[in-house]
Amino acid sequence: MKISILTLFPDMFTGVFQQSILKNAQEKNLVEYELVNYREYTKDRHNRVDDYPYGGGGGMVLTPQPVFDAVEAVKQQGSDAKPPKVILLCPQGERYTQKKAEELAKEEHLILICGHYEGYDERIREHVVTEEISIGDYVLTGGEIGAMVIADSVTRLLPGALGNETSAVTDSYSTGLLEHPHYTRPADYEGMKVPDVLLSGHHERIDRWRREQSLKRTYERRPELLENMDLTKEDTEFIKKLKETDENS
Amino acid sequence: MKISILTLFPDMFTGVFQQSILKNAQEKNLVEYELVNYREYTKDRHNRVDDYPYGGGGGMVLTPQPVFDAVEAVKQQGSDAKPPKVILLCPQGERYTQKKAEELAKEEHLILICGHYEGYDERIREHVVTEEISIGDYVLTGGEIGAMVIADSVTRLLPGALGNETSAVTDSYSTGLLEHPHYTRPADYEGMKVPDVLLSGHHERIDRWRREQSLKRTYERRPELLENMDLTKEDTEFIKKLKETDENS
Repeated sequence: MKISILTLFPDMFTGVFQQSILKNAQEKNLVEYELVNYREYTKDRHNRVDDYPYGGGGGMVLTPQPVFDAVEAVKQQGSDAKPPKVILLCPQGERYTQKKAEELAKEEHLILICGHYEGYDERIREHVVTEEISIGDYVLTGGEIGAMVIADSVTRLLPGALGNETSAVTDSYSTGLLEHPHYTRPADYEGMKVPDVLLSGHHERIDRWRREQSLKRTYERRPELLENMDLTKEDTEFIKKLKETDENS
Repeated sequence: MKISILTLFPDMFTGVFQQSILKNAQEKNLVEYELVNYREYTKDRHNRVDDYPYGGGGGMVLTPQPVFDAVEAVKQQGSDAKPPKVILLCPQGERYTQKKAEELAKEEHLILICGHYEGYDERIREHVVTEEISIGDYVLTGGEIGAMVIADSVTRLLPGALGNETSAVTDSYSTGLLEHPHYTRPADYEGMKVPDVLLSGHHERIDRWRREQSLKRTYERRPELLENMDLTKEDTEFIKKLKETDENS
């Protein structure tokens, strides 16, 4: 897989791509990150990539030409059998989710376009971009951190990217419930103790305890996740008890 | 304001903190970023910060001691009049929003704790952390990119962090609607034209066009945002028309 990132600030990415799992994934040739500064593609003689908006108002707007040409160049250099997805990071985009990450992880080539506090000329949206993604309902100074979110969440899904040690913990997301609490040594840290059940060695009881903690945490923090789940009879009864306790308190 | 980030990968942050608005904000003394590697606080003779989970199962779990001690040290070095917020980045946390960013921007000191694919020992959650934040419903390899999201979104809200040029564009978020399209020169880019109204110089018509484009985009992409808004009679009629067109098509 190849992830091309079009940005005015390629140096923002170096730290993130040179550490840990993203670094390893590149070394294993699972993924290639390409950083493209679209300022290099501008035909403006002052090297500008933005200009004042038509119709007035504050803020600068990215002009079409450098972005059109940079995307074209990136496409031509690639030898993609399938046309790449061209993704614009912006607050108006589709909300990013794990499901979307799984979809993108099946692609061959992603092109991510980052603006940096400027707006985008609408013609970029209409003619170059195949989808728009927002990583959440908050405002950032640019699309770069959003591009990191996509690069990271997609890379870790590529087969072989995570070692055995690391895969299991996060897997619990796929149960549709929030994770149960974890405990490690020491069993007593300055008077704060690990629950007895985890020290019991009784695996059936441990599994049940973990399941119930997951259900409890999901019920307390994200009850809407429980609505679309297939729960066992035992689970349903446990949640019923949680509700009763709530109502009596 | 001070933002202390506890991480095993401080180098991931250097690129982000040395560019653009975050760089300027530090130079203007609006914010100080402190990177703390909590591995330096471990008392384990092999320098470890994680261990196997009690009760079995895959994955490693961050031990309490290095995190407890690093947070304590960061608190003691500070001279905070108000106790700092200690925020854990994790998928089970409260969903991050612009409203939360505005709340955090009023604090004096934030301490952000990043795990990196390990789970957290529950005692860290219970005894050190004052809140848990998730930046979205997707899985990342660590909390670092989430900490960048918080640092960036909070910093740009500090008075003086954004120049005049940059503030206006993103302000539109505060209207509660998605932004209208932007256009800049050229008026005709390879046959793709800017809408006539924006070239008309008629400011009242331009304002109305922009408002309607904002309403239309919000209606199409995030209709739930319209529900809690105080709309003018004109806006309500425009949305009614959009609905009718939808139903007839």
